Amino acid sequence: MNQNYEKLEEQLKRAQALQAASTIFSWDNETLAPEGAVEKTSVYMGQLSMEYMKVMTSPEIKEAAKALEGGEGLTEVQQAIAEKVRKDIHDMDVIPPEEYQAYSELTAKAGTVWAKAKKQNDYSLFAPVLKDLISYQRKFAGYRAKDGQRLYDVLLEDYEEGFTMKELDRFFDRMRKEIVPLLKEVRKKLDMIDSSAVFQEYDIEKQKEFSRFLAEYLGFDFTKGVLGESEHPFTDSLHNEDVRITNHYYPDNLESAIFSVIHETGHALYEGGNSDEVTMTPVQGGASCGMHESQSRMFENVIGRSRAFWEPIYGKLQETFPEQLENLPLEDFIRIINRVHPDLIRTEADELTYCLHIMVRYEMEKKMIEECSVEDLPEMWNSLYEEYLGIRPETDTEGILQDVHWSFGGFGYFPSYALGNAFASQIYAQMEKDLEVEQLLKEGNLKPIREYLKEHIHQYGASRKTRRLLKDLTGEEFNPDYYVDYLKNKYTALYELN
Amino acid sequence: MNQNYEKLEEQLKRAQALQAASTIFSWDNETLAPEGAVEKTSVYMGQLSMEYMKVMTSPEIKEAAKALEGGEGLTEVQQAIAEKVRKDIHDMDVIPPEEYQAYSELTAKAGTVWAKAKKQNDYSLFAPVLKDLISYQRKFAGYRAKDGQRLYDVLLEDYEEGFTMKELDRFFDRMRKEIVPLLKEVRKKLDMIDSSAVFQEYDIEKQKEFSRFLAEYLGFDFTKGVLGESEHPFTDSLHNEDVRITNHYYPDNLESAIFSVIHETGHALYEGGNSDEVTMTPVQGGASCGMHESQSRMFENVIGRSRAFWEPIYGKLQETFPEQLENLPLEDFIRIINRVHPDLIRTEADELTYCLHIMVRYEMEKKMIEECSVEDLPEMWNSLYEEYLGIRPETDTEGILQDVHWSFGGFGYFPSYALGNAFASQIYAQMEKDLEVEQLLKEGNLKPIREYLKEHIHQYGASRKTRRLLKDLTGEEFNPDYYVDYLKNKYTALYELN
Repeated sequence: MNQNYEKLEEQLKRAQALQAASTIFSWDNETLAPEGAVEKTSVYMGQLSMEYMKVMTSPEIKEAAKALEGGEGLTEVQQAIAEKVRKDIHDMDVIPPEEYQAYSELTAKAGTVWAKAKKQNDYSLFAPVLKDLISYQRKFAGYRAKDGQRLYDVLLEDYEEGFTMKELDRFFDRMRKEIVPLLKEVRKKLDMIDSSAVFQEYDIEKQKEFSRFLAEYLGFDFTKGVLGESEHPFTDSLHNEDVRITNHYYPDNLESAIFSVIHETGHALYEGGNSDEVTMTPVQGGASCGMHESQSRMFENVIGRSRAFWEPIYGKLQETFPEQLENLPLEDFIRIINRVHPDLIRTEADELTYCLHIMVRYEMEKKMIEECSVEDLPEMWNSLYEEYLGIRPETDTEGILQDVHWSFGGFGYFPSYALGNAFASQIYAQMEKDLEVEQLLKEGNLKPIREYLKEHIHQYGASRKTRRLLKDLTGEEFNPDYYVDYLKNKYTALYELN
Repeated sequence: MNQNYEKLEEQLKRAQALQAASTIFSWDNETLAPEGAVEKTSVYMGQLSMEYMKVMTSPEIKEAAKALEGGEGLTEVQQAIAEKVRKDIHDMDVIPPEEYQAYSELTAKAGTVWAKAKKQNDYSLFAPVLKDLISYQRKFAGYRAKDGQRLYDVLLEDYEEGFTMKELDRFFDRMRKEIVPLLKEVRKKLDMIDSSAVFQEYDIEKQKEFSRFLAEYLGFDFTKGVLGESEHPFTDSLHNEDVRITNHYYPDNLESAIFSVIHETGHALYEGGNSDEVTMTPVQGGASCGMHESQSRMFENVIGRSRAFWEPIYGKLQETFPEQLENLPLEDFIRIINRVHPDLIRTEADELTYCLHIMVRYEMEKKMIEECSVEDLPEMWNSLYEEYLGIRPETDTEGILQDVHWSFGGFGYFPSYALGNAFASQIYAQMEKDLEVEQLLKEGNLKPIREYLKEHIHQYGASRKTRRLLKDLTGEEFNPDYYVDYLKNKYTALYELN
């Protein structure tokens, strides 16, 4: 084997172990660590991430990665690994260490300030911190910008390589022109669907049992994974043979637990579907945030809210909750879980309004990175909600302070959520050409679907880029038509708009 | 602050974080990791322990620790830390790295071989591995032996500094002369106590609930700790604000879960009682294995099997299991949980026979380290059991293959278990002079007991040695009389031998 690659691998083995340690600590913190442990445990976690940084910026790794430029004698995955390492090193190298240190201290406290401001509905607490966060983001993006690259594009590409404002503007323009008017029509008929059946009292132990069933039904392998519980559902993985998802259960809401576990299982299938070549390396995981989200959203929405999916298992759900669902026909259940319910909170959004929540954030971030006037942001947020969703937040808690992302410096992250939905539609359309998807769902045979996604997407981890995966699988570039058509067809039919 | 100490501390901070990562991985493995994850996760764990070794043998830490010899300007705890580091470095330095590597590989596979041999009741599978393990132990002990020191003494001092064969021979001689004959007498009257009441069907959820109650009643702080579940109960801690215990529940045995959780809570109070000065340092934890065991055993046996302890809470136990215990008076319950039941398995032993199980292992280890003839060991084991406990194993699974310890190289470990009981009796006798222990137990007021133990033992972690703690607290050197008297008084009364 290439000697330089061996040297690189030796350092990466160290880095991966340190990163896995951070992952297991963070999983533990979210799921079961005692509340009093946080302060001291965070000292360990801080130290481990410093050790990781030290390995990733060591002369040994830099030299090895540089010597591998050109990629002679390397496999495709090895090339992708070396390239990723070079990119990470470059991104860290261009930022002066003392500025990075100051920024780390800022983000370390920003989360707490944001949480307090949100709790007290007091934006003025968070505004100065947000101002500093934005200013660092701009400064760092400036260091990293290639010739003439716009600052927000630098940030966008952190999450979705190859997707700049040019492309996203086009994408969101279509949403504005087609989905906003569609929502206006739907809003007139919201009371067509009575959803009270899913908001009765649902025994939490039974919800857990059914969630476990759903995960397994979708293909989650419990010999290589764990289903835990946390405040907010999430997916973590140590490697392709230890993938962990969590769920959260509400006593009076059946929908939340069901669709969260399907969503997280979508993420988990991606992680667990990574090949042995990419797992435990820097290209473990997904091709991009958006591609990862495409898998969770496809399972949650396109598959998980379809009639075909529920046909073989709705009976089991009824048996689990006979009192609540015995008299609710499958048809009605399907209508309920697909209903539109425009409200202020992104994480609770339905499929139709979801991308509009994202559009608000996208437009705001563009302005935030261009010219920062934090005082104007709450009003800007509220106006955009009124314009796109037809509702206006009455508090900053439900408005500008709603999401955690900016407090950890995640500018440019949001658009991936919307892109994920669009990728999902494009991929699903292709899958329908290649497989009898609906038939398979009706038969409760999800294995061919999993295998298809594994073959075309999951196995590669991040060793192939999102754009390439899309192109190779569907034969065309990213095309938002599939998503727009999907939403239009689905909601026109559901609300009988024609 | 001393500059050299700062340098030492910088390295120790790294080492502690790496060790904490190993601890959390191992907790996770024992409690909830999926079975399929083991192989890949063990790569991370191996790497993390290599990183730890690297830090602990780095020139930086060696220089700093050496420069601190003499201890000028250091606090007592800082001196203890520096001394511990120097000792660890010395122990690692005298062993040639290639031999250490080979030994690590041997122990890595030995556990699996032992488990297989035990399962198949086939000692011949394990014998060659055991022979190699013993040979490495002797070789390494030789490297580390000071002038004229006997090899087994080197090993014994790893677990219990200041306790050599000279002392242990005296200790076990007393057991042989006083406890073996006492057991002979007791054996004649075993059927005095009918224990069937605790071996009925006991609902596992209720056992969990009661275990949680017991831990909390004893003072386990659930805001700084977790009670989990695992095959074998154990205690782990990340620091004094994150202490974790596990329990195991059997559907037809109430005793096991109850006394395991009391035992582990004893360990947990020690870890949680560490001062902030010792936690997150190399002197975190207990003064020695035996001292740690003294705390778990004191709570499990001396306190946990006493009438005074159960007086305020037996009613609650009866309420939890009315069908099974309603008609069992407290008196009978106390007799049952204190009964003698000589059998072959150490971990299930009662208080009276426990030290005899250890004596068998002690005598065998002395011979194993002196002259190794692995073929003779099974017979040696069986004869000693017959001699001391009056029963003879019929299989090697229940005999020579019973314990995991030798497979991970833990030679010299066993005596600590017996010493722990003896320390417990000596400490308890002193505590009875200083506190109205029985009265406090009857009132359900355990706080003064915890505080007493924290003040005299727990707070110091490993910064003060076992011998010193005993001397400072009781005013005398280690004295096995307390233990012998305790056992004689207790069992003479229980079995009405006088």
